[in-house]
Amino acid sequence: MLTPDQALAQILAQALPVGTERVPLAQATGRVLRQTVRADRDFPPYPRVTMDGIAFSYAQWAAQPEQWLPASAVQLAGQPPLTLAPGTAIQVMTGAVLPHGADTVVRYEDLEAEQKGSSPVRVRAGVPVTLGQCVHLQGSDRPRGAELLAPGRVLAAPDIAVAATVGLTHLEVSQLPQLAVISTGDELVDVAANPLPHQIRRSNGYLLQAALQAWHVPCQLHHLPDQLDALRTGLAQLLDRCDALLLSGGVSEGLADLVPRALADLGVAKLFHKVAQRPGKPFWFGLGPGPRGPVPVFALPGNPVSTFVGYYHYVLPWLRRVLQAPEPPPQFAVLGQDIKFAPDLTYFLQVRTLAQQNGTLLAHPVAGGGSGDLANLLDVNGLLVLPPNRKNSENLFAAGEVFPLVSFR
Amino acid sequence: MLTPDQALAQILAQALPVGTERVPLAQATGRVLRQTVRADRDFPPYPRVTMDGIAFSYAQWAAQPEQWLPASAVQLAGQPPLTLAPGTAIQVMTGAVLPHGADTVVRYEDLEAEQKGSSPVRVRAGVPVTLGQCVHLQGSDRPRGAELLAPGRVLAAPDIAVAATVGLTHLEVSQLPQLAVISTGDELVDVAANPLPHQIRRSNGYLLQAALQAWHVPCQLHHLPDQLDALRTGLAQLLDRCDALLLSGGVSEGLADLVPRALADLGVAKLFHKVAQRPGKPFWFGLGPGPRGPVPVFALPGNPVSTFVGYYHYVLPWLRRVLQAPEPPPQFAVLGQDIKFAPDLTYFLQVRTLAQQNGTLLAHPVAGGGSGDLANLLDVNGLLVLPPNRKNSENLFAAGEVFPLVSFR
Repeated sequence: MLTPDQALAQILAQALPVGTERVPLAQATGRVLRQTVRADRDFPPYPRVTMDGIAFSYAQWAAQPEQWLPASAVQLAGQPPLTLAPGTAIQVMTGAVLPHGADTVVRYEDLEAEQKGSSPVRVRAGVPVTLGQCVHLQGSDRPRGAELLAPGRVLAAPDIAVAATVGLTHLEVSQLPQLAVISTGDELVDVAANPLPHQIRRSNGYLLQAALQAWHVPCQLHHLPDQLDALRTGLAQLLDRCDALLLSGGVSEGLADLVPRALADLGVAKLFHKVAQRPGKPFWFGLGPGPRGPVPVFALPGNPVSTFVGYYHYVLPWLRRVLQAPEPPPQFAVLGQDIKFAPDLTYFLQVRTLAQQNGTLLAHPVAGGGSGDLANLLDVNGLLVLPPNRKNSENLFAAGEVFPLVSFR
Repeated sequence: MLTPDQALAQILAQALPVGTERVPLAQATGRVLRQTVRADRDFPPYPRVTMDGIAFSYAQWAAQPEQWLPASAVQLAGQPPLTLAPGTAIQVMTGAVLPHGADTVVRYEDLEAEQKGSSPVRVRAGVPVTLGQCVHLQGSDRPRGAELLAPGRVLAAPDIAVAATVGLTHLEVSQLPQLAVISTGDELVDVAANPLPHQIRRSNGYLLQAALQAWHVPCQLHHLPDQLDALRTGLAQLLDRCDALLLSGGVSEGLADLVPRALADLGVAKLFHKVAQRPGKPFWFGLGPGPRGPVPVFALPGNPVSTFVGYYHYVLPWLRRVLQAPEPPPQFAVLGQDIKFAPDLTYFLQVRTLAQQNGTLLAHPVAGGGSGDLANLLDVNGLLVLPPNRKNSENLFAAGEVFPLVSFR
């Protein structure tokens, strides 16, 4: 049986990049950039005053620091640069271009005037002045032509602001794949229905739809009955029009677990069935025929915690690869209490993490009723990944040990 | 001068909750719940089989563990419960209701049949069987009536799934306030414009708009010139139709810094001007008159890093309060290298955090060109909050010390 990492590697090897589309800046947040954004000008594009005060020539001032400087001219932000007359200063405002001939700015607070509020002014005795102070030099942040944003970036607020600064009203981003989410299981009824005592309402579709929304990926929700013909007919239509299928349920060993057979009948090539993990062991993955190329089919076990774990360990990394977003940096957390787990399986332990005042992230296990206990996920914000085949006699994962973390919320 | 925490407390004291609205489940992710969601039935609602296999009476089986059990009847998921005949078993599928009279399930893998694939069957010798195994007892996760989701929850995938399970097609969530984002500064031109050498394109509006999108909060982008009349006219219109204003620029000591005066002229009552922090010291906050009550006016300094810090330290906590989302748990990180900072100000240090394999979060300072260096934010994913008035002679914040973290991205 494959380990979760082996299974993931097989899935990622099948992830083909989607195409790109141009979207307006206001719709680009959270999307994956597919172009390089470069500085169209120096950053900043001119020597920029960073404090309200006066600008002058440091060398001229330093020759006679106690001198009074006429400073009636004003350099406002947004105006072309003035030129400094010898022996004078120019009042300058934050964001303005530095006047020609000036190289140093002294804040109003560090000046004194012959008469209150008027020119001439001079630097207060004892105030230290250094050459070039309060000037944000042209190109000192990034030179013209510098790469600012590389393809693959998941666009956040500063990225959008930088794109605006270089004049891009639109950005080239990854298209969004068209996914179908299909639940199976004849015990499941519609959310609006009044279930009979032996029925429950569907929830996995909503779980996956909501998780995909974080990536702006739309999906249609479908439900198919535990009948081979109906499964084949329904899945054939979806293979024909979707970029990937996310199924839940029907992949175990039961008499009504018809999903693998229906998929095989449709020519979906199985890559693997079952992974050495808990929860989520009966996971089935294959590649179906589609009009635009192979269609990945994730057939996740139907218990809600299994579906959830499968989304975060398999579907999301696949989606990131398809969108061309690089893998996120790994996360780790400290196990908060002893856990015993004997099976030779990777255990995705449900935890609530809490940042400690010593800078560590502590993960408290949240015991639940197993993979069918959807409500337990309400108290959980991550999965701690405990490796299989523990090498101690008590099958003990000890409080204080550190493990990889998959975090959500 | 107020500290950042004092300033924030004054702002939060003015945060009035918004009303509520009902949205379909598919649009509720990321919104703030304003109703209580309770279990309409037990979780699970019936004794639920968790493995494919056979169900029987433990007491009857234990009296004669090697007995052959006729097991031709099948309990499928979604069907009403069968009733066990004495001395027999019933085949049961994952998700099915446990048949009446049965209390224990044994997996197919742990059975042997007289003839391959047919009934009767018996439990393999040596397989341990415990009373009630592989049965998810009715109500064992949550009893009917239990509170599942409380008001204030920021809705994530498991919450949406739980709402579906209890039959809610819509959820009551906080309405979204109508915000206006207004940049000022005559050096600023439109994103689509070709700036003159002493001009730059606007970016702060896009920065704030993108940050607000994480909370689904829409905003209109505006720009007003550095002229008192135009500021008054423009701001008066926005006070009249918005729930809050977010300004950037025009709040410092320069001759063109007319925002505080324009706001005062419009009857916006100043709560404070300037906060003991870097960057973002000239922050101005007040309450304006509006047709539906007081309108908070955040007048942030115009340097992009100042605007960004102001958003995360003031606007976002205010927004969470308005939306009735509780404060998030505090975060902490370990400073990755020595930093010297002398001014008696709270210093929002730009950092890139990286989870360490020992479970700590390490924050590497990302040096930049100051509050005007927008591009520096591209390399940053958090702000480490260094307190003022360091009590050592070198003004040293030492590598290894832990400080509160504001994280984004």
